[in-house]
Amino acid sequence: MKKQDILYGIHPVREAIQAGRRRIAAILLAPGKLPERLLRIREMAVKRGIPVKTAPANRLGELAKSDRHQGIIAETGIFQTTPLETLLKTMGAGTSPPFLLVADSITDPMNLGALIRTALAVGMMALITPRDRCAPPTPTVSSASAGALEHMTLVQVTNLARALGRLQEKGIWIFGLDHRAELDCFQSDFTGPAALVIGGEGKGIRPLVKKSCDHLVSIPQNGPVTSLNASVAGAVVMYEAYRQRMMHRKES
Amino acid sequence: MKKQDILYGIHPVREAIQAGRRRIAAILLAPGKLPERLLRIREMAVKRGIPVKTAPANRLGELAKSDRHQGIIAETGIFQTTPLETLLKTMGAGTSPPFLLVADSITDPMNLGALIRTALAVGMMALITPRDRCAPPTPTVSSASAGALEHMTLVQVTNLARALGRLQEKGIWIFGLDHRAELDCFQSDFTGPAALVIGGEGKGIRPLVKKSCDHLVSIPQNGPVTSLNASVAGAVVMYEAYRQRMMHRKES
Repeated sequence: MKKQDILYGIHPVREAIQAGRRRIAAILLAPGKLPERLLRIREMAVKRGIPVKTAPANRLGELAKSDRHQGIIAETGIFQTTPLETLLKTMGAGTSPPFLLVADSITDPMNLGALIRTALAVGMMALITPRDRCAPPTPTVSSASAGALEHMTLVQVTNLARALGRLQEKGIWIFGLDHRAELDCFQSDFTGPAALVIGGEGKGIRPLVKKSCDHLVSIPQNGPVTSLNASVAGAVVMYEAYRQRMMHRKES
Repeated sequence: MKKQDILYGIHPVREAIQAGRRRIAAILLAPGKLPERLLRIREMAVKRGIPVKTAPANRLGELAKSDRHQGIIAETGIFQTTPLETLLKTMGAGTSPPFLLVADSITDPMNLGALIRTALAVGMMALITPRDRCAPPTPTVSSASAGALEHMTLVQVTNLARALGRLQEKGIWIFGLDHRAELDCFQSDFTGPAALVIGGEGKGIRPLVKKSCDHLVSIPQNGPVTSLNASVAGAVVMYEAYRQRMMHRKES
Protein backbone atom coordinates (compact mmCIF):
# COMPACT_ATOMS: atom_id res chain seq x y z
CA MET A 1 0.00 0.00 0.00
CA LYS A 2 1.14 3.48 -0.93
CA LYS A 3 2.41 5.46 2.05
CA GLN A 4 3.78 8.57 0.39
CA ASP A 5 2.48 11.35 -1.83
CA ILE A 6 4.44 13.80 -3.92
CA LEU A 7 2.62 17.11 -3.73
CA TYR A 8 3.65 19.54 -6.46
CA GLY A 9 3.19 23.22 -7.17
CA ILE A 10 3.13 26.36 -5.05
CA HIS A 11 -0.44 26.19 -3.74
CA PRO A 12 -0.61 22.53 -2.69
CA VAL A 13 2.79 22.62 -0.95
CA ARG A 14 2.11 25.92 0.82
CA GLU A 15 -1.35 24.85 1.99
CA ALA A 16 -0.07 21.45 3.16
CA ILE A 17 2.50 23.23 5.36
CA GLN A 18 -0.07 25.70 6.67
CA ALA A 19 -2.75 23.11 7.32
CA GLY A 20 -0.21 20.96 9.20
CA ARG A 21 -2.22 17.79 8.71
CA ARG A 22 0.16 15.76 6.60
CA ARG A 23 3.54 14.61 7.80
CA ILE A 24 6.02 16.34 5.45
CA ALA A 25 9.31 14.44 5.06
CA ALA A 26 11.02 17.04 2.86
CA ILE A 27 10.54 19.98 0.51
CA LEU A 28 12.49 19.88 -2.77
CA LEU A 29 13.19 23.09 -4.66
CA ALA A 30 14.67 23.68 -8.11
CA PRO A 31 18.15 25.27 -7.91
CA GLY A 32 18.93 28.91 -8.75
CA LYS A 33 17.45 32.23 -7.65
CA LEU A 34 14.08 31.61 -6.05
CA PRO A 35 11.07 33.83 -6.78
CA GLU A 36 9.44 35.59 -3.82
CA ARG A 37 6.63 33.07 -3.45
CA LEU A 38 9.04 30.13 -3.18
CA LEU A 39 11.27 32.03 -0.73
CA ARG A 40 8.28 32.51 1.55
CA ILE A 41 7.41 28.82 1.42
CA ARG A 42 11.02 27.90 2.19
CA GLU A 43 10.92 30.19 5.21
CA MET A 44 7.68 28.61 6.43
CA ALA A 45 9.18 25.14 6.04
CA VAL A 46 12.41 26.01 7.89
CA LYS A 47 10.43 27.53 10.79
CA ARG A 48 8.50 24.28 11.14
CA GLY A 49 11.66 22.17 11.00
CA ILE A 50 10.90 20.60 7.63
CA PRO A 51 14.07 19.59 5.71
CA VAL A 52 14.53 21.64 2.52
CA LYS A 53 16.63 20.17 -0.30
CA THR A 54 17.51 21.11 -3.86
CA ALA A 55 16.92 18.98 -6.97
CA PRO A 56 17.07 19.70 -10.72
CA ALA A 57 13.78 20.73 -12.31
CA ASN A 58 13.60 17.58 -14.46
CA ARG A 59 13.99 15.45 -11.31
CA LEU A 60 11.08 17.35 -9.72
CA GLY A 61 9.04 16.61 -12.84
CA GLU A 62 9.90 12.89 -12.62
CA LEU A 63 8.98 12.67 -8.95
CA ALA A 64 5.76 14.67 -9.41
CA LYS A 65 4.89 12.82 -12.64
CA SER A 66 3.78 16.24 -13.86
CA ASP A 67 5.45 19.28 -15.39
CA ARG A 68 3.17 21.58 -13.40
CA HIS A 69 5.43 21.57 -10.32
CA GLN A 70 6.43 25.27 -10.54
CA GLY A 71 9.85 24.41 -9.10
CA ILE A 72 8.63 22.90 -5.84
CA ILE A 73 7.49 19.52 -4.57
CA ALA A 74 6.90 18.04 -1.12
CA GLU A 75 7.37 14.44 -0.03
CA THR A 76 4.45 13.90 2.30
CA GLY A 77 2.41 11.23 3.99
CA ILE A 78 -0.77 10.27 2.14
CA PHE A 79 -3.91 12.33 2.63
CA GLN A 80 -5.72 11.25 5.79
CA THR A 81 -9.44 10.70 5.44
CA THR A 82 -11.90 10.96 8.34
CA PRO A 83 -14.39 8.23 9.35
CA LEU A 84 -18.06 9.20 8.93
CA GLU A 85 -18.76 8.54 12.62
CA THR A 86 -16.02 11.00 13.64
CA LEU A 87 -17.56 13.66 11.41
CA LEU A 88 -21.03 12.99 12.82
CA LYS A 89 -19.73 13.33 16.39
CA THR A 90 -17.97 16.66 15.82
CA MET A 91 -20.69 18.09 13.65
CA GLY A 92 -22.89 20.01 16.07
CA ALA A 93 -19.89 21.76 17.65
CA GLY A 94 -19.65 24.90 15.44
CA THR A 95 -21.70 28.09 15.79
CA SER A 96 -23.36 27.77 12.38
CA PRO A 97 -25.44 24.80 11.17
CA PRO A 98 -23.56 22.02 9.35
CA PHE A 99 -22.89 22.65 5.67
CA LEU A 100 -21.47 19.76 3.66
CA LEU A 101 -20.61 18.80 0.11
CA VAL A 102 -21.29 15.33 -1.28
CA ALA A 103 -19.66 14.42 -4.60
CA ASP A 104 -21.22 11.43 -6.34
CA SER A 105 -19.39 9.93 -9.35
CA ILE A 106 -17.05 12.88 -9.90
CA THR A 107 -14.29 10.88 -11.57
CA ASP A 108 -12.40 13.79 -13.17
CA PRO A 109 -9.72 15.00 -10.70
CA MET A 110 -9.89 18.53 -12.21
CA ASN A 111 -13.63 18.78 -11.56
CA LEU A 112 -13.26 17.34 -8.06
CA GLY A 113 -10.43 19.79 -7.29
CA ALA A 114 -12.47 22.77 -8.53
CA LEU A 115 -15.44 21.68 -6.40
CA ILE A 116 -13.23 21.40 -3.30
CA ARG A 117 -11.76 24.86 -3.91
CA THR A 118 -15.25 26.38 -4.00
CA ALA A 119 -16.48 24.28 -1.05
CA LEU A 120 -13.68 25.63 1.13
CA ALA A 121 -14.43 29.20 -0.03
CA VAL A 122 -18.06 28.92 1.14
CA GLY A 123 -16.95 27.45 4.47
CA MET A 124 -18.15 23.91 4.00
CA MET A 125 -16.89 21.67 6.79
CA ALA A 126 -16.44 18.41 4.93
CA LEU A 127 -16.71 16.51 1.68
CA ILE A 128 -18.27 13.06 1.51
CA THR A 129 -17.53 10.80 -1.48
CA PRO A 130 -18.32 7.18 -2.40
CA ARG A 131 -14.95 5.42 -2.22
CA ASP A 132 -15.26 3.49 -5.49
CA ARG A 133 -17.17 6.08 -7.53
CA CYS A 134 -15.20 9.26 -7.07
CA ALA A 135 -11.66 10.42 -7.81
CA PRO A 136 -9.40 9.76 -4.76
CA PRO A 137 -7.56 12.65 -2.99
CA THR A 138 -4.42 12.56 -5.13
CA PRO A 139 -1.82 15.32 -5.61
CA THR A 140 -3.57 16.12 -8.93
CA VAL A 141 -6.76 16.89 -7.01
CA SER A 142 -4.80 19.01 -4.53
CA SER A 143 -3.29 20.92 -7.44
CA ALA A 144 -6.68 21.41 -9.17
CA SER A 145 -8.09 22.66 -5.85
CA ALA A 146 -5.25 25.24 -5.52
CA GLY A 147 -4.32 23.47 -2.27
CA ALA A 148 -7.84 23.67 -0.78
CA LEU A 149 -7.85 19.87 -0.41
CA GLU A 150 -5.17 20.21 2.30
CA HIS A 151 -7.68 21.98 4.58
CA MET A 152 -10.73 19.86 3.76
CA THR A 153 -12.15 17.06 5.88
CA LEU A 154 -12.74 14.16 3.51
CA VAL A 155 -14.99 11.23 4.36
CA GLN A 156 -14.95 8.27 1.98
CA VAL A 157 -17.88 5.89 2.37
CA THR A 158 -18.72 2.51 0.88
CA ASN A 159 -22.44 3.10 0.56
CA LEU A 160 -23.37 6.71 -0.14
CA ALA A 161 -27.14 6.27 0.17
CA ARG A 162 -26.66 4.80 3.64
CA ALA A 163 -24.31 7.65 4.62
CA LEU A 164 -26.93 10.20 3.55
CA GLY A 165 -29.41 8.36 5.80
CA ARG A 166 -27.02 8.79 8.73
CA LEU A 167 -26.83 12.56 7.99
CA GLN A 168 -30.62 12.75 7.88
CA GLU A 169 -30.83 11.09 11.30
CA LYS A 170 -28.68 13.99 12.53
CA GLY A 171 -31.18 16.52 11.19
CA ILE A 172 -29.35 17.42 8.00
CA TRP A 173 -31.37 18.17 4.87
CA ILE A 174 -30.03 16.58 1.71
CA PHE A 175 -30.27 18.65 -1.50
CA GLY A 176 -29.44 16.88 -4.77
CA LEU A 177 -28.58 18.84 -7.88
CA ASP A 178 -30.67 17.55 -10.81
CA HIS A 179 -31.20 19.51 -14.00
CA ARG A 180 -34.70 18.04 -14.40
CA ALA A 181 -35.91 19.13 -10.94
CA GLU A 182 -38.91 21.49 -10.92
CA LEU A 183 -37.75 23.35 -7.84
CA ASP A 184 -34.86 25.65 -8.66
CA CYS A 185 -32.02 26.44 -6.30
CA PHE A 186 -33.13 30.07 -5.90
CA GLN A 187 -36.51 28.89 -4.58
CA SER A 188 -34.96 26.46 -2.10
CA ASP A 189 -34.18 27.14 1.54
CA PHE A 190 -30.58 26.28 2.40
CA THR A 191 -30.41 28.14 5.71
CA GLY A 192 -30.59 25.06 7.95
CA PRO A 193 -28.21 22.10 8.35
CA ALA A 194 -27.59 21.14 4.72
CA ALA A 195 -25.66 18.77 2.48
CA LEU A 196 -25.45 19.44 -1.27
CA VAL A 197 -25.05 16.42 -3.55
CA ILE A 198 -23.35 17.04 -6.91
CA GLY A 199 -23.28 14.32 -9.57
CA GLY A 200 -20.86 13.65 -12.39
CA GLU A 201 -20.95 15.59 -15.64
CA GLY A 202 -23.24 13.86 -18.12
CA LYS A 203 -25.05 11.31 -15.99
CA GLY A 204 -25.62 13.31 -12.80
CA ILE A 205 -26.42 11.72 -9.44
CA ARG A 206 -27.02 7.96 -9.42
CA PRO A 207 -30.73 6.93 -9.08
CA LEU A 208 -30.39 5.30 -5.66
CA VAL A 209 -28.52 8.31 -4.29
CA LYS A 210 -31.14 10.61 -5.81
CA LYS A 211 -33.85 8.70 -3.95
CA SER A 212 -32.06 9.42 -0.68
CA CYS A 213 -32.25 13.19 -1.20
CA ASP A 214 -34.88 15.26 0.62
CA HIS A 215 -35.06 17.79 -2.21
CA LEU A 216 -33.92 17.83 -5.81
CA VAL A 217 -33.04 21.27 -7.13
CA SER A 218 -32.12 22.58 -10.56
CA ILE A 219 -30.27 25.62 -11.83
CA PRO A 220 -32.42 27.80 -14.08
CA GLN A 221 -30.94 28.05 -17.55
CA ASN A 222 -31.71 29.98 -20.65
CA GLY A 223 -31.08 29.31 -24.27
CA PRO A 224 -30.08 26.46 -26.50
CA VAL A 225 -27.19 24.77 -24.67
CA THR A 226 -28.82 23.52 -21.51
CA SER A 227 -26.00 22.25 -19.43
CA LEU A 228 -23.29 23.63 -17.19
CA ASN A 229 -19.87 22.25 -16.39
CA ALA A 230 -20.09 20.10 -13.19
CA SER A 231 -17.74 22.34 -11.21
CA VAL A 232 -19.59 25.48 -12.34
CA ALA A 233 -23.00 23.99 -11.52
CA GLY A 234 -21.68 22.99 -8.09
CA ALA A 235 -20.32 26.48 -7.52
CA VAL A 236 -23.61 28.17 -8.42
CA VAL A 237 -25.57 26.08 -5.90
CA MET A 238 -22.88 26.28 -3.20
CA TYR A 239 -22.79 30.07 -3.50
CA GLU A 240 -26.58 30.41 -3.52
CA ALA A 241 -26.69 28.37 -0.31
CA TYR A 242 -23.86 30.45 1.16
CA ARG A 243 -25.62 33.71 0.24
CA GLN A 244 -28.82 32.58 1.96
CA ARG A 245 -26.94 31.46 5.06
CA MET A 246 -25.08 34.79 5.35
CA MET A 247 -28.34 36.76 4.98
CA HIS A 248 -30.06 34.52 7.50
CA ARG A 249 -27.31 35.01 10.06
CA LYS A 250 -27.44 38.82 9.66
CA GLU A 251 -31.21 38.81 10.14
CA SER A 252 -31.26 36.59 13.23
CA MET B 1 -5.45 34.79 -43.68
CA LYS B 2 -7.22 31.73 -42.32
CA LYS B 3 -10.65 31.19 -43.84
CA GLN B 4 -11.60 27.82 -42.43
CA ASP B 5 -12.09 26.28 -39.02
CA ILE B 6 -12.26 22.62 -38.11
CA LEU B 7 -14.85 22.28 -35.37
CA TYR B 8 -14.62 19.01 -33.48
CA GLY B 9 -16.73 17.08 -31.03
CA ILE B 10 -20.47 16.47 -30.66
CA HIS B 11 -21.48 19.73 -28.94
CA PRO B 12 -19.61 22.24 -31.13
CA VAL B 13 -20.70 20.59 -34.39
CA ARG B 14 -24.34 20.19 -33.29
CA GLU B 15 -24.59 23.76 -32.02
CA ALA B 16 -22.92 25.17 -35.16
CA ILE B 17 -25.57 23.44 -37.29
CA GLN B 18 -28.40 24.61 -35.04
CA ALA B 19 -27.16 28.18 -34.74
CA GLY B 20 -26.83 28.38 -38.54
CA ARG B 21 -24.33 31.22 -38.36
CA ARG B 22 -21.26 29.59 -39.87
CA ARG B 23 -21.10 28.31 -43.40
CA ILE B 24 -20.55 24.55 -43.05
CA ALA B 25 -18.72 23.00 -46.02
CA ALA B 26 -18.91 19.41 -44.81
CA ILE B 27 -19.39 17.12 -41.83
CA LEU B 28 -16.91 14.24 -41.47
CA LEU B 29 -17.83 11.19 -39.42
CA ALA B 30 -15.74 8.21 -38.34
CA PRO B 31 -16.81 4.99 -40.10
CA GLY B 32 -18.75 2.16 -38.49
CA LYS B 33 -21.96 1.98 -36.48
CA LEU B 34 -22.87 5.46 -35.26
CA PRO B 35 -24.11 6.09 -31.71
CA GLU B 36 -27.54 7.73 -31.33
CA ARG B 37 -26.14 11.23 -30.78
CA LEU B 38 -24.11 11.16 -34.00
CA LEU B 39 -27.05 9.74 -35.97
CA ARG B 40 -29.17 12.70 -34.87
CA ILE B 41 -26.51 15.17 -35.96
CA ARG B 42 -26.16 13.43 -39.34
CA GLU B 43 -29.91 13.71 -39.80
CA MET B 44 -29.84 17.45 -38.94
CA ALA B 45 -27.01 17.99 -41.42
CA VAL B 46 -28.74 16.09 -44.24
CA LYS B 47 -31.97 18.10 -43.71
CA ARG B 48 -30.00 21.30 -44.10
CA GLY B 49 -28.24 20.08 -47.24
CA ILE B 50 -24.80 19.86 -45.61
CA PRO B 51 -22.55 17.22 -47.27
CA VAL B 52 -21.74 14.35 -44.89
CA LYS B 53 -18.59 12.28 -45.53
CA THR B 54 -16.71 9.48 -43.80
CA ALA B 55 -13.07 9.58 -42.71
CA PRO B 56 -10.93 7.31 -40.49
CA ALA B 57 -10.75 8.40 -36.84
CA ASN B 58 -7.01 9.16 -37.07
CA ARG B 59 -7.68 11.46 -40.03
CA LEU B 60 -10.32 13.29 -37.95
CA GLY B 61 -7.73 13.68 -35.21
CA GLU B 62 -5.19 15.08 -37.68
CA LEU B 63 -7.65 17.60 -39.11
CA ALA B 64 -8.95 18.66 -35.68
CA LYS B 65 -5.44 18.73 -34.21
CA SER B 66 -7.06 17.15 -31.15
CA ASP B 67 -8.05 13.67 -30.07
CA ARG B 68 -11.22 15.00 -28.46
CA HIS B 69 -13.23 14.85 -31.68
CA GLN B 70 -15.65 12.11 -30.51
CA GLY B 71 -15.85 10.78 -34.08
CA ILE B 72 -17.13 13.98 -35.69
CA ILE B 73 -15.69 17.15 -37.19
CA ALA B 74 -17.07 19.97 -39.33
CA GLU B 75 -15.26 22.01 -41.94
CA THR B 76 -16.69 25.47 -41.41
CA GLY B 77 -16.08 29.12 -42.15
CA ILE B 78 -14.29 31.00 -39.38
CA PHE B 79 -16.28 32.41 -36.48
CA GLN B 80 -17.83 35.75 -37.43
CA THR B 81 -17.43 38.52 -34.89
CA THR B 82 -19.77 41.51 -34.62
CA PRO B 83 -18.69 45.17 -34.71
CA LEU B 84 -19.29 47.09 -31.47
CA GLU B 85 -21.45 49.66 -33.26
CA THR B 86 -23.75 46.91 -34.55
CA LEU B 87 -24.16 45.56 -31.03
CA LEU B 88 -24.88 49.05 -29.67
CA LYS B 89 -27.56 49.63 -32.32
CA THR B 90 -29.40 46.36 -31.69
CA MET B 91 -29.08 46.54 -27.94
CA GLY B 92 -32.28 48.23 -26.79
CA ALA B 93 -34.42 45.94 -28.93
CA GLY B 94 -35.09 43.11 -26.44
CA THR B 95 -37.72 43.05 -23.70
CA SER B 96 -35.22 42.84 -20.84
CA PRO B 97 -32.39 45.30 -20.13
CA PRO B 98 -29.03 44.54 -21.79
CA PHE B 99 -26.86 42.00 -19.98
CA LEU B 100 -23.31 41.55 -21.25
CA LEU B 101 -20.09 39.76 -20.41
CA VAL B 102 -16.69 41.40 -20.83
CA ALA B 103 -13.62 39.13 -20.61
CA ASP B 104 -10.35 40.99 -20.01
CA SER B 105 -7.09 39.05 -20.37
CA ILE B 106 -8.66 35.59 -20.32
CA THR B 107 -5.91 33.87 -22.28
CA ASP B 108 -6.75 30.27 -21.37
CA PRO B 109 -9.20 28.90 -23.98
CA MET B 110 -10.64 26.48 -21.41
CA ASN B 111 -11.51 29.31 -19.02
CA LEU B 112 -12.92 31.44 -21.84
CA GLY B 113 -15.03 28.52 -23.08
CA ALA B 114 -16.38 27.83 -19.59
CA LEU B 115 -17.29 31.52 -19.16
CA ILE B 116 -19.14 31.56 -22.51
CA ARG B 117 -21.06 28.41 -21.58
CA THR B 118 -22.30 30.06 -18.38
CA ALA B 119 -22.93 33.43 -20.09
CA LEU B 120 -25.26 31.75 -22.58
CA ALA B 121 -27.03 29.88 -19.76
CA VAL B 122 -27.87 33.17 -17.98
CA GLY B 123 -29.10 34.70 -21.24
CA MET B 124 -26.31 37.18 -21.81
CA MET B 125 -26.62 38.77 -25.26
CA ALA B 126 -22.96 39.26 -26.10
CA LEU B 127 -19.34 38.90 -25.06
CA ILE B 128 -16.85 41.74 -25.50
CA THR B 129 -13.11 40.99 -25.48
CA PRO B 130 -9.95 42.99 -26.15
CA ARG B 131 -8.62 41.59 -29.43
CA ASP B 132 -4.98 41.28 -28.36
CA ARG B 133 -5.50 40.33 -24.72
CA CYS B 134 -7.95 37.50 -24.84
CA ALA B 135 -8.06 34.03 -26.36
CA PRO B 136 -9.60 34.18 -29.88
CA PRO B 137 -12.78 32.20 -30.75
CA THR B 138 -11.04 28.99 -31.84
CA PRO B 139 -12.52 25.49 -32.12
CA THR B 140 -10.87 24.76 -28.73
CA VAL B 141 -12.94 27.54 -27.16
CA SER B 142 -16.07 26.20 -28.85
CA SER B 143 -15.29 22.76 -27.45
CA ALA B 144 -14.65 24.12 -23.93
CA SER B 145 -17.95 26.02 -24.13
CA ALA B 146 -19.85 22.81 -25.08
CA GLY B 147 -20.79 24.60 -28.30
CA ALA B 148 -22.20 27.70 -26.56
CA LEU B 149 -19.76 29.86 -28.55
CA GLU B 150 -21.73 29.06 -31.72
CA HIS B 151 -24.72 30.98 -30.35
CA MET B 152 -22.84 33.88 -28.77
CA THR B 153 -22.41 37.34 -30.24
CA LEU B 154 -18.72 38.16 -29.91
CA VAL B 155 -17.36 41.70 -30.19
CA GLN B 156 -13.57 42.09 -30.34
CA VAL B 157 -12.33 45.60 -29.62
CA THR B 158 -8.92 47.25 -29.81
CA ASN B 159 -9.33 49.47 -26.79
CA LEU B 160 -11.44 47.91 -24.05
CA ALA B 161 -11.59 50.97 -21.78
CA ARG B 162 -12.96 53.04 -24.66
CA ALA B 163 -15.53 50.34 -25.51
CA LEU B 164 -16.74 50.36 -21.89
CA GLY B 165 -17.15 54.15 -22.23
CA ARG B 166 -19.41 53.58 -25.25
CA LEU B 167 -21.52 51.15 -23.23
CA GLN B 168 -21.80 53.69 -20.41
CA GLU B 169 -23.05 56.32 -22.89
CA LYS B 170 -25.84 53.86 -23.70
CA GLY B 171 -26.83 53.70 -20.03
CA ILE B 172 -25.13 50.41 -19.17
CA TRP B 173 -23.60 49.99 -15.73
CA ILE B 174 -20.17 48.37 -15.74
CA PHE B 175 -19.40 45.97 -12.86
CA GLY B 176 -15.80 44.75 -12.52
CA LEU B 177 -14.96 41.64 -10.53
CA ASP B 178 -12.12 42.43 -8.11
CA HIS B 179 -11.30 40.27 -5.11
CA ARG B 180 -10.20 43.33 -3.12
CA ALA B 181 -13.45 45.26 -3.61
CA GLU B 182 -15.32 46.18 -0.41
CA LEU B 183 -18.72 45.85 -2.01
CA ASP B 184 -19.63 42.21 -2.49
CA CYS B 185 -21.68 40.91 -5.38
CA PHE B 186 -24.59 39.99 -3.10
CA GLN B 187 -24.89 43.63 -1.99
CA SER B 188 -24.80 44.96 -5.58
CA ASP B 189 -27.80 45.75 -7.75
CA PHE B 190 -27.59 44.05 -11.13
CA THR B 191 -31.22 44.53 -12.14
CA GLY B 192 -30.60 47.31 -14.69
CA PRO B 193 -28.65 47.34 -17.96
CA ALA B 194 -25.39 45.69 -16.90
CA ALA B 195 -22.02 44.49 -18.16
CA LEU B 196 -19.85 42.21 -15.99
CA VAL B 197 -16.09 42.44 -16.46
CA ILE B 198 -14.07 39.32 -15.55
CA GLY B 199 -10.27 39.44 -15.44
CA GLY B 200 -7.68 36.74 -15.95
CA GLU B 201 -6.79 34.25 -13.23
CA GLY B 202 -3.94 35.61 -11.14
CA LYS B 203 -3.73 39.24 -12.18
CA GLY B 204 -7.42 40.10 -12.54
CA ILE B 205 -8.69 43.09 -14.54
CA ARG B 206 -6.03 45.49 -15.92
CA PRO B 207 -5.78 48.80 -14.00
CA LEU B 208 -7.00 51.04 -16.84
CA VAL B 209 -10.00 48.78 -17.46
CA LYS B 210 -10.72 48.73 -13.73
CA LYS B 211 -10.84 52.53 -13.72
CA SER B 212 -13.52 52.42 -16.40
CA CYS B 213 -15.86 50.35 -14.21
CA ASP B 214 -18.74 52.00 -12.37
CA HIS B 215 -18.57 49.48 -9.54
CA LEU B 216 -16.02 46.94 -8.38
CA VAL B 217 -17.48 43.91 -6.68
CA SER B 218 -15.96 40.96 -4.85
CA ILE B 219 -17.12 37.46 -4.03
CA PRO B 220 -17.22 36.80 -0.29
CA GLN B 221 -14.89 33.97 0.66
CA ASN B 222 -14.14 32.05 3.77
CA GLY B 223 -11.10 30.24 4.98
CA PRO B 224 -7.44 29.95 4.16
CA VAL B 225 -7.34 29.65 0.34
CA THR B 226 -8.78 32.97 -0.81
CA SER B 227 -9.15 32.58 -4.51
CA LEU B 228 -11.54 31.00 -6.94
CA ASN B 229 -10.94 29.67 -10.42
CA ALA B 230 -11.67 32.45 -13.00
CA SER B 231 -14.50 30.54 -14.66
CA VAL B 232 -16.05 29.68 -11.29
CA ALA B 233 -15.77 33.28 -10.05
CA GLY B 234 -17.38 34.50 -13.27
CA ALA B 235 -20.19 31.97 -12.90
CA VAL B 236 -20.95 33.00 -9.30
CA VAL B 237 -21.34 36.68 -10.27
CA MET B 238 -23.22 35.94 -13.51
CA TYR B 239 -25.70 33.76 -11.64
CA GLU B 240 -26.13 36.27 -8.81
CA ALA B 241 -26.95 38.93 -11.42
CA TYR B 242 -29.29 36.52 -13.20
CA ARG B 243 -31.07 35.65 -9.93
CA GLN B 244 -31.65 39.33 -9.15
CA ARG B 245 -32.92 40.02 -12.66
CA MET B 246 -35.39 37.10 -12.52
CA MET B 247 -36.70 38.21 -9.10
CA HIS B 248 -36.99 41.80 -10.31
CA ARG B 249 -38.98 40.79 -13.37
CA LYS B 250 -41.39 38.73 -11.28
CA GLU B 251 -41.94 41.65 -8.91
CA SER B 252 -42.50 44.29 -11.56
